[in-house]
Amino acid sequence: MPGKNAVAGGVDLADAFARISDAVDKALDEVLPPAGPGPEGRLAEAMRYATLAGGKRLRPFLVVSAGGLFEVPEAVSLRVGTAVELIHSYSLIHDDLPCMDDDAVRRGKPSCHVAFGEALAILVGDALMPLAFELLSDTVTHPDAAVRAALVSGLAVAAGARGMVGGQVLDLAAESMALDTGTVARLERLKTGALIAFCCDAGAILGHAQDAERRALAAYAHDLGLVYQVADDLLDAEGDAASVGKAVHKDAMRGKATFVSMLGVDKARQQARRLANQAAGHLEIFGPRGDTLRALARFVVERAS
Amino acid sequence: MPGKNAVAGGVDLADAFARISDAVDKALDEVLPPAGPGPEGRLAEAMRYATLAGGKRLRPFLVVSAGGLFEVPEAVSLRVGTAVELIHSYSLIHDDLPCMDDDAVRRGKPSCHVAFGEALAILVGDALMPLAFELLSDTVTHPDAAVRAALVSGLAVAAGARGMVGGQVLDLAAESMALDTGTVARLERLKTGALIAFCCDAGAILGHAQDAERRALAAYAHDLGLVYQVADDLLDAEGDAASVGKAVHKDAMRGKATFVSMLGVDKARQQARRLANQAAGHLEIFGPRGDTLRALARFVVERAS
Repeated sequence: MPGKNAVAGGVDLADAFARISDAVDKALDEVLPPAGPGPEGRLAEAMRYATLAGGKRLRPFLVVSAGGLFEVPEAVSLRVGTAVELIHSYSLIHDDLPCMDDDAVRRGKPSCHVAFGEALAILVGDALMPLAFELLSDTVTHPDAAVRAALVSGLAVAAGARGMVGGQVLDLAAESMALDTGTVARLERLKTGALIAFCCDAGAILGHAQDAERRALAAYAHDLGLVYQVADDLLDAEGDAASVGKAVHKDAMRGKATFVSMLGVDKARQQARRLANQAAGHLEIFGPRGDTLRALARFVVERAS
Repeated sequence: MPGKNAVAGGVDLADAFARISDAVDKALDEVLPPAGPGPEGRLAEAMRYATLAGGKRLRPFLVVSAGGLFEVPEAVSLRVGTAVELIHSYSLIHDDLPCMDDDAVRRGKPSCHVAFGEALAILVGDALMPLAFELLSDTVTHPDAAVRAALVSGLAVAAGARGMVGGQVLDLAAESMALDTGTVARLERLKTGALIAFCCDAGAILGHAQDAERRALAAYAHDLGLVYQVADDLLDAEGDAASVGKAVHKDAMRGKATFVSMLGVDKARQQARRLANQAAGHLEIFGPRGDTLRALARFVVERAS
């Protein structure tokens, strides 16, 4: 994710992204089972293949940045961000399956089911999900059990039928039926937005945020999720597969309703910019401490410009 | 599960099973999203199809019975048992998929993917899993956050790569390679035993058991898991599909190593009886309070006699 445009809103995000991405890789390496001979070693190998080395680690970045508003130690928010990344990775593996989106390339490599077969790819997802909850409920992650339980609860809701899975169900339906703009917005809010919202809320939970602070972060997360999704749609519409790291132009080929197909490229980009500014505006309550999150919102738009 | 032989070891299990089964159905009905029109309503319908009305509810029965050793209120252990049942149901849905065990019938009905398609069946499993963790981390389930977090941790380990998923990976391997008895034992311990062990441990966690009590329950659970698996193998080898509620004789057709294929039917049944007695013996520390769990161990054997 770092690179051109990594300086946004006066904050240089490139260093921070690189540092957090390295730390997440290290944390994943520690919590994932060791690859080795035999069927269980092969499962571990596939779990590592699908999660390590690759991915922007936007979600851990968000947890760390949101936690940073409340001076949460980075080691703590990194473990929570790693749990979110496990859930995110599992969802990509299952989304890529032939009976789902049927994507053969992910993060510039063969998708997990292409590299390891369908059965193992399903099981990799099935193993990554509980590992996320194991990590969140670990006393090493946080000494306060109430915080651990609150994190588990939030992530469980974000990952389930009222969150990510509900969004994927709508996404599959979008290929065979016309969805109105309201339903497309709901799709994106569930599929991508719910987990992004949890990342911000995790910072608030870890930081024992005041109600007003927690609401401000939730409003920011809501808009950021939409920005992120429009940017993703723009990359699909305009990007090339090599730099995006996965197949592109899929939405148009499938006749899938997206913000870009509904608004057109230019209006979608305008809308993303408007939403990024709106997202940044919600952070007023945090003063200059909110600069990283403000910069992130603008950075997500620029990524697709 | 109740019926003939439901009286074992002087304890009548039929009533208790019927009562707990009804209570689990009611709890599932409350925690599952409502079926309805649209893609999300269809997901909910499939989640209900795959979890409600059917299943022996052995695992909730175990949680309630283990909790009963420590006078844990049944309403509390039932909610925890319901969470375990969500995990168990998800695992059956994914195990039945064409790329896994390819089973078209489950609990006497078309399997979830036959009734709702592969994509939705995968997503049903993906939605049931976080719902289990949502339930365990809910303050309504238990007021003590340390207990909630400990339950989440235990279930996450039992469901993951070092538990159920690890067992399923070995199970898939068993179809294409010869496993030695040690590996078959490991397979069963992970695939079925880990979740059964968690059920007993959940009772200990809820009941703030002493270390010696917790160890005794763990020893019981270990043997019970093996008994259960041998009984399942015997039903596959000797049962008919109508009464078992799923396809039978599959292990032999696939040349899959099981206790029955390795020991023969008679020796396997003897071994199951020996293990059931051994399981019951571990409960001495609980005196007469252990009668239900003792009866259950014998009942599981008789089910396949």
